[in-house]
Amino acid sequence: MKNISRRTVDRALIYIRTLEHLIKEKRYLVSSKDLALITGISDVQIRKDISSFGKVGRPRIGYKTAELNKTLKGFVLQENVVHVALFGVGHLGTAILRYPAFNEDNIKLVAAFEKDKSKIGKKINGVRVYPVEMAPKIIKRTHADLGIIAVPASHSQEVADIMVLSGLRGIVNFAPASISVPKSVIVKDIDFTIELLSLFCNSQR
Amino acid sequence: MKNISRRTVDRALIYIRTLEHLIKEKRYLVSSKDLALITGISDVQIRKDISSFGKVGRPRIGYKTAELNKTLKGFVLQENVVHVALFGVGHLGTAILRYPAFNEDNIKLVAAFEKDKSKIGKKINGVRVYPVEMAPKIIKRTHADLGIIAVPASHSQEVADIMVLSGLRGIVNFAPASISVPKSVIVKDIDFTIELLSLFCNSQR
Repeated sequence: MKNISRRTVDRALIYIRTLEHLIKEKRYLVSSKDLALITGISDVQIRKDISSFGKVGRPRIGYKTAELNKTLKGFVLQENVVHVALFGVGHLGTAILRYPAFNEDNIKLVAAFEKDKSKIGKKINGVRVYPVEMAPKIIKRTHADLGIIAVPASHSQEVADIMVLSGLRGIVNFAPASISVPKSVIVKDIDFTIELLSLFCNSQR
Repeated sequence: MKNISRRTVDRALIYIRTLEHLIKEKRYLVSSKDLALITGISDVQIRKDISSFGKVGRPRIGYKTAELNKTLKGFVLQENVVHVALFGVGHLGTAILRYPAFNEDNIKLVAAFEKDKSKIGKKINGVRVYPVEMAPKIIKRTHADLGIIAVPASHSQEVADIMVLSGLRGIVNFAPASISVPKSVIVKDIDFTIELLSLFCNSQR
């Protein structure tokens, strides 16, 4: 990520999110003006960003959505594949293992960890389930960068500690409890309650 | 929501999110200065907002986190309980039905809908599973406000159409496909891919 500002990466992620939607809606082309309307970022900034990623839109035609999306993902990932370790193979964990969009997007679930012995040794959607004590070793071997917490709230801190010890640098936390980790580890909490409250308030207007 | 600006509600949601974390970290008191540091909103604005909700902090002591959180939730919900209908009782849907934090927060899952006949008629965590064709009737009877899509991407638009016909005003969409709905219906897409990409980029810095 050297020489690229944090803000540029954040904008690139917004463009990717927008392009994903346009592609799903079968839009093959998009102008910087359309992107500006959807994202709230100025079209001048958008053209500047995109040309810095090596793409130029054609006047009156715009950008090819799929091509631009691919370029942007290449830019934010810098040709990396994101290796992800999952903790907890209950209903949520199993849903994440079966999530169909990961493989297309250079995101690879490399291992799953679980306490329940009846699940250990199984493969779900090609991903092996290991006992949680093996996490440090397996995470090193599989070069996992990020981890997902899908265990009950009562076990989330214990699992977070193992993730930190194993060298993971980022954690997506689905457990409805906040976790303490060193500052060098980034946590993204996904809180269904807040999402629903926010949606409710917006739908009342 | 009358007489309350959209921005005030948005800030209230940010305060709630922050307070939830503080409470989980066993913080009983918080000052407007601390809230300002965490949220990036000025402490003057925070004190003004909170006093408009009828709470005043005590000088040098601050606000009681649990009490303030309760007041704020009362404010954004206006004494409503949010009634939610779930579509899709696979692994993700089951995880949502078992999500423990909803009941405490005036969010009530009132019904689940599914195509698979082997699941219909069951109760999961107290919520009855109905055939999807019954959605319009059951949604009216249970006064559901919001719906959650937890079906495969290939069925998400079909389900979204039923939700719109049933009168739901907001949709949380977990399917990795975007849905088309009238402008009066608000959609919140939860995209695991984008969350992981964003976390990866941030953890590289």
